[in-house]
Amino acid sequence: MNSMRFKPETLRKFTVEILDKVGYRGEEAKIFADSLIMANESGVDSHGITRLRTYAERIRHGVVDIHAEPEIVNDADTFIMVDSRNGMGVATCRWTIDRCIERAKKHGSCFAAVRNGNHFGTGAFHTMYGAEQGMLTIAMSNSSACVAPTGGRTAILGTNPMSIAIPSEKYGAMILDMATCTVAQGKVILANKEGKKIPFGWAIDEKGNPTDDPAAALKGAMLPFGGPKGYGISLIIEILCSALTGAYMSPDTKSFWRDFENPQGLGFFMGVLDISKILPLDEFKKRTDEILDRIKNSPKAEGVSEIFIPGEIEQRNRKLANESGIELGSNVYSELVALANEYGVSADILKPM
Amino acid sequence: MNSMRFKPETLRKFTVEILDKVGYRGEEAKIFADSLIMANESGVDSHGITRLRTYAERIRHGVVDIHAEPEIVNDADTFIMVDSRNGMGVATCRWTIDRCIERAKKHGSCFAAVRNGNHFGTGAFHTMYGAEQGMLTIAMSNSSACVAPTGGRTAILGTNPMSIAIPSEKYGAMILDMATCTVAQGKVILANKEGKKIPFGWAIDEKGNPTDDPAAALKGAMLPFGGPKGYGISLIIEILCSALTGAYMSPDTKSFWRDFENPQGLGFFMGVLDISKILPLDEFKKRTDEILDRIKNSPKAEGVSEIFIPGEIEQRNRKLANESGIELGSNVYSELVALANEYGVSADILKPM
Repeated sequence: MNSMRFKPETLRKFTVEILDKVGYRGEEAKIFADSLIMANESGVDSHGITRLRTYAERIRHGVVDIHAEPEIVNDADTFIMVDSRNGMGVATCRWTIDRCIERAKKHGSCFAAVRNGNHFGTGAFHTMYGAEQGMLTIAMSNSSACVAPTGGRTAILGTNPMSIAIPSEKYGAMILDMATCTVAQGKVILANKEGKKIPFGWAIDEKGNPTDDPAAALKGAMLPFGGPKGYGISLIIEILCSALTGAYMSPDTKSFWRDFENPQGLGFFMGVLDISKILPLDEFKKRTDEILDRIKNSPKAEGVSEIFIPGEIEQRNRKLANESGIELGSNVYSELVALANEYGVSADILKPM
Repeated sequence: MNSMRFKPETLRKFTVEILDKVGYRGEEAKIFADSLIMANESGVDSHGITRLRTYAERIRHGVVDIHAEPEIVNDADTFIMVDSRNGMGVATCRWTIDRCIERAKKHGSCFAAVRNGNHFGTGAFHTMYGAEQGMLTIAMSNSSACVAPTGGRTAILGTNPMSIAIPSEKYGAMILDMATCTVAQGKVILANKEGKKIPFGWAIDEKGNPTDDPAAALKGAMLPFGGPKGYGISLIIEILCSALTGAYMSPDTKSFWRDFENPQGLGFFMGVLDISKILPLDEFKKRTDEILDRIKNSPKAEGVSEIFIPGEIEQRNRKLANESGIELGSNVYSELVALANEYGVSADILKPM
């Protein structure tokens, strides 16, 4: 048996039980579990339940403060500076988006610069939440450095993910959720393990030359997506998330995976626009649907079976996951059973469908 | 003699004189001339004085209304809907950014959705203006369709340019100004004229397959920069500039170059954040400079002589243009002399340096 299927609710419950053992409880822990399992539901397993152990260990080591309450340290009505105070990233972002929505409902817009943050998980979790309330929502974060600027050869920029969600009726929220590097470095690590080549364009070697050798790429750096334009976007995210917030710049942030002594010190930039303040939300959704229909129904390139809109595949995966469960490999299942045993949680919770 | 050099002031004066002949005068015309010649100063000649004839003809035909005054048609303090009323794009954008700055100075942020617009010229002109006043500034526009969505084979999306400017001390404003397609379609047209191949990745043929044949590419469509991620960004610009504003979607907008009967019907999305409301502007600039220094001073890839930050080359060009003038090819000069004669302006104004 190489894989098993689980109801999303089963995995959420398991997550909540593990977090309970490290003292993380209540509404916040539930929201965190939602965010983690949403990644699995969306088919983005890399950001899902396989990360639970690391989150739990970070809490156990006290390197992230589950009791911290975010604070608005500078307040200009519709532009605020938030100090996460080293709280959980997901909780900080939910808290911040809630404040932004509250203010946008009064004034139309609100944006926030957040410092002293920890990994915010899947950006789409935060922007979808805003879009479901009729808000155009943006969220971005800096992160450990692994990307070289165009023309450079050392990793200075983070993967610097960005998510933007736009309310639509027919398609649910349209959600772009992307790192600003070509692909996740994990794919290079995997290719290296498996002795496979990587496509040219993903990464450079230590001299800054394009390479298809994953070992050489790991000594070099990843590249921004889309050449100099993607580099520009990544750099803007860097500035918004560190110069503006006072958080570390990406190369100075601490590793989520390896550093259990120092807070990560990440910065986020997020904000919302309340569409209904300048036109009826239904009208906006209808117009957005017309654009998306036009894209979906346009002639396809040879060999292409369907044109997708951003986030559509993940949305379809979520629907499937709720109907027929989330598939986990037997190795991931074994990891979770081991985690359950270590934390004194009954592995019986992990009942397959 | 293949080229001549002109003081920027000379070209601005010439532009103002031509516009005067079609009744476009005063402060607005001066600002328009600034925006047009800034493109030449920046080395972006494609958006510079070679476009003057088309702008003048559009005004002469009355397809754009130089007497229009933009109007805020929906007002939520820091999120506004502006009707350009078919006014000049540059004037509308300047007017809109001014309103946004005014409101951001009170509340911290302000964003605007603009409809019934005409070509706004170089996005950097608008965002630089905001950045010079300490604002994080963004401006985007939709445009005639020439880009296929990922997986498609017909042009549905515009070049959908976006500019973001960030105040810095040492580097002036850091300005990203980019179309969201791979390259300007003009480059494909030029390659076709010159019988040259184009790089794979720029465009697709009419079946949607990658091509290096410019003639085939012109029957097909351009591609978004950066694959599906760039497509996602282009689509978001499309939604912000048309679904949100009520402007046409890109394929329905009217051509700046060819349609002298119907208003273009473009949409813009722009906005500002007043940095000084959440931290001292000097501190922000200093932190931004530190990031930019770190990028600039990082080790270079083999064969690379300098790492650039977005907009740095254009900024350097502007400095050079002010020291040693703007170079125009003799063909462009001849065009301007012909334009002068047609409009009854003395070509003597066009005195080379």
